[in-house]
Amino acid sequence: MNPSNENELTLAVLERLEGATDPRFAQIMASLIKHLHAFLRDVDLKPDEWMNGIQFLTAVGQACTDKRQEFILLSDTLGASMMVVMLDQARALAQGRTGAKATEATEATVQGPYYWEGAPEQPLGANIAEGVAGEPTFYSGRITDTSGKPLQGALLDIWSGDGEGNYDMQIEGAEMAARARIRTDEQGRYWYWSIQPSYYPVPVDGPVGRMLGGMGRHPNRPGHIHMMVSAPGHVPVTTHLFVANSPYIDSDAVFGVRPSLIVDYEKHPAGKAPDGRVMDQPYWSAHYDFCLAPRQA
Amino acid sequence: MNPSNENELTLAVLERLEGATDPRFAQIMASLIKHLHAFLRDVDLKPDEWMNGIQFLTAVGQACTDKRQEFILLSDTLGASMMVVMLDQARALAQGRTGAKATEATEATVQGPYYWEGAPEQPLGANIAEGVAGEPTFYSGRITDTSGKPLQGALLDIWSGDGEGNYDMQIEGAEMAARARIRTDEQGRYWYWSIQPSYYPVPVDGPVGRMLGGMGRHPNRPGHIHMMVSAPGHVPVTTHLFVANSPYIDSDAVFGVRPSLIVDYEKHPAGKAPDGRVMDQPYWSAHYDFCLAPRQA
Repeated sequence: MNPSNENELTLAVLERLEGATDPRFAQIMASLIKHLHAFLRDVDLKPDEWMNGIQFLTAVGQACTDKRQEFILLSDTLGASMMVVMLDQARALAQGRTGAKATEATEATVQGPYYWEGAPEQPLGANIAEGVAGEPTFYSGRITDTSGKPLQGALLDIWSGDGEGNYDMQIEGAEMAARARIRTDEQGRYWYWSIQPSYYPVPVDGPVGRMLGGMGRHPNRPGHIHMMVSAPGHVPVTTHLFVANSPYIDSDAVFGVRPSLIVDYEKHPAGKAPDGRVMDQPYWSAHYDFCLAPRQA
Repeated sequence: MNPSNENELTLAVLERLEGATDPRFAQIMASLIKHLHAFLRDVDLKPDEWMNGIQFLTAVGQACTDKRQEFILLSDTLGASMMVVMLDQARALAQGRTGAKATEATEATVQGPYYWEGAPEQPLGANIAEGVAGEPTFYSGRITDTSGKPLQGALLDIWSGDGEGNYDMQIEGAEMAARARIRTDEQGRYWYWSIQPSYYPVPVDGPVGRMLGGMGRHPNRPGHIHMMVSAPGHVPVTTHLFVANSPYIDSDAVFGVRPSLIVDYEKHPAGKAPDGRVMDQPYWSAHYDFCLAPRQA
């Protein structure tokens, strides 16, 4: 079919998917084509605006290196990554659902670019941020299933930036810091020491930074500590805990904050901490209970 | 606002446009965000599919050089470029409309990557494809306004590939060929000689070629000759004439064919041509009348 108007053009492009052998690919491309065409028509995109878009996307692609993924940053800052996370968790919980409580599983958020596989296993109570800049914080809580049953030996794979907003990975040749894998005790409890992470900006020296500027947006993420939480037979979750009183807590540049993941950091004077450690300086504590949905057999 | 579900996520991203100083940019980004999020939800995009998309877009960006624009090729093959052309012409005609006949102006199509500014001015009747491979063709017609009034001195800026599907620009160091600027006579008539252009494939050695493969699509454009048609006081048009009997006439890889732009090429034996030229070999003729809408004062 040769299209003589805008509606026929969209139909003609869709029609050309008839030869696709992978039905899922055809489904994805059909939806993409419909939304792309609808977007162009909704805004009545002009040729110079289209060319700006072409040049922007080209610059995003060319800013990508083996150390930088500007398209993921674009996806993050447009909320697309977080949407994929939400959809993925909903799908996983629907598949793993064994009862009405499955929706109470700990909510997921974006993984971000700073995960480093193979963090050291540490015992309960360890300070996983020895020598890392930042105010000491005692982290504790429990990991249970959605019926409230404690999960012994559940794994917390933890990582964060430091108290000044820098990740180990951002420093050329740096060793792992503020990262550990910790397992719960027989009562599903975990506790460890780290620092209170600071807010920090996403990279703004590329095209996505210029886009944020045009939108009048700041590039910052509020302070947060990442964890992947898993236990055999349960749906794992990749999430963060967010520092409640952090700047930008209501305007995360990548839309990763969910109300259920915001944690109050409580300040304490120097002295004996809950785990018996004697602190010679003030410290913080943060308490959070994780909840994993059983996986369907 | 921190989103606790998919709907709120879209609203949160839109809300973050409040600081944009350019209202048109904010309008475009708001529509883009809505359609992007709706697309992700419509297809329930999975994390590995999202990553495939990220890697595809990155590869498209990295395939771009000063000689190749893979993002324009992507836009072309998804019908987005043609949509922008249709919207642009509709807007230009709406602005230039002086009467009910404005909709009969010659229809536009994509410009493509092979325009080369500064083609030589040639007299009426010239052979603009001297030495170019392909079967000789006599092109003729008139340029009028939408009320049928002939436009004297209207400009046809013409370019095409050759009879084997190659453009001069594709050959390193080549000189201009099969390009000319020709002006109508006092009766609005034009005539010149060139060749009958062949179909040819868009570049398929990059990520867009792989996408077309996945869609089960061929990469070919049917034979066509490009022209920009203009006259003072009238809305110019960038268009093609398509060879009616060309392979792929019903499945242009970039969706540029419009029914009104398909032209019958008539075959003639060797002998005296309509302009008096004596041909010692068979030749073709193609006749097309262009129509330009007056521009509003």
